[in-house]
Amino acid sequence: MQFPSRLIENAVEEVSKLPGIGKKTALRLVLHLLKNEVSVSESLADSITNLRRDIQYCENCHNISDGPQCNICANPRRDHQLICVVADLPDVLAIENTGQYSGCYHILGGIISPIDGIGPDELNINSLIDRVACSEPKVNEIILALNPTMEGDTTAFYLTKKLQPHQVKVSAIARGVPIGAELEYTDEITLGNSILRRRIIEVEH
Amino acid sequence: MQFPSRLIENAVEEVSKLPGIGKKTALRLVLHLLKNEVSVSESLADSITNLRRDIQYCENCHNISDGPQCNICANPRRDHQLICVVADLPDVLAIENTGQYSGCYHILGGIISPIDGIGPDELNINSLIDRVACSEPKVNEIILALNPTMEGDTTAFYLTKKLQPHQVKVSAIARGVPIGAELEYTDEITLGNSILRRRIIEVEH
Repeated sequence: MQFPSRLIENAVEEVSKLPGIGKKTALRLVLHLLKNEVSVSESLADSITNLRRDIQYCENCHNISDGPQCNICANPRRDHQLICVVADLPDVLAIENTGQYSGCYHILGGIISPIDGIGPDELNINSLIDRVACSEPKVNEIILALNPTMEGDTTAFYLTKKLQPHQVKVSAIARGVPIGAELEYTDEITLGNSILRRRIIEVEH
Repeated sequence: MQFPSRLIENAVEEVSKLPGIGKKTALRLVLHLLKNEVSVSESLADSITNLRRDIQYCENCHNISDGPQCNICANPRRDHQLICVVADLPDVLAIENTGQYSGCYHILGGIISPIDGIGPDELNINSLIDRVACSEPKVNEIILALNPTMEGDTTAFYLTKKLQPHQVKVSAIARGVPIGAELEYTDEITLGNSILRRRIIEVEH
């Protein structure tokens, strides 16, 4: 595409570097900015600059934070003896949204993936071991909440091995047929696993 | 969604104001910026700020430009007696991409649409009439390249009426069955029109 202006070409170029945004979408977004008030573009540009300049990572769990500790780690009402290990921030947001979890988190910053050249040393694993070894009061349980993929399972296996000497309970989130799914269309591995890992229904007397 | 940082919340908020980008996509884009070099975010923010601050509009055709005249109007090799009227910049880019047009443009900045509160006075129509009335050498032909919708047709009708007193040839781009389409699945109005406006095939002897 040939643009009538170097400025617009530059903006389209930069916007189309974002994941999932091609040249045509980038142009549409840039024209939207041009049609709107200057203040819209200014606050967008400012928010990006400020984010990248001022963002901090929680020294405890590596969550994104405005200060040295994230608001989950700094909250005395959260259970600090329960740590949920996740790959990245969106997983924290997803679990927080359920309203079912009151412990803390540990963000690995990715997942072991030899194909992408990500080994255990690229992830926040040592700091997790340190947390388990040193934190006071002692950590009771580590919940592994990783994607049910080969990479997720590899990472879970590696973490379990690493955590073994520290005598901490390690659990993994349940796998099975999701709510609302139809058994007929559920893949065989999930369905097979959900039979093998069936749960006894306890009847109250 | 509850964010662990005011900075990220703010950035997601601003990015999700862009058309077609929801909160989840915005978060994905923002996390992408966080994972990449600072320079990526900086050049994105700069390109947006510079665009909005320095952009100019061609005084002749209202095209986006880096100077008082766009590079099409400033090009002496373009036919300045032929003006193609379009609704907006993407239409110029689309026509330029065809490589079939060597005249100049006039960008209306929209299309007459009473539902959206856009009347003729909101568009660059008077400057088109002035161009036709005053430009030297005289304009030979005005090509209306507007979308084949009711709004496009209304605008074309209005422009034709307005241009009538100036004795300039007014044409509209051809409508018909597009290349690669199947007649069977072409809508009846397009197909009906393409029969009414059929073209005699001239055989060379």
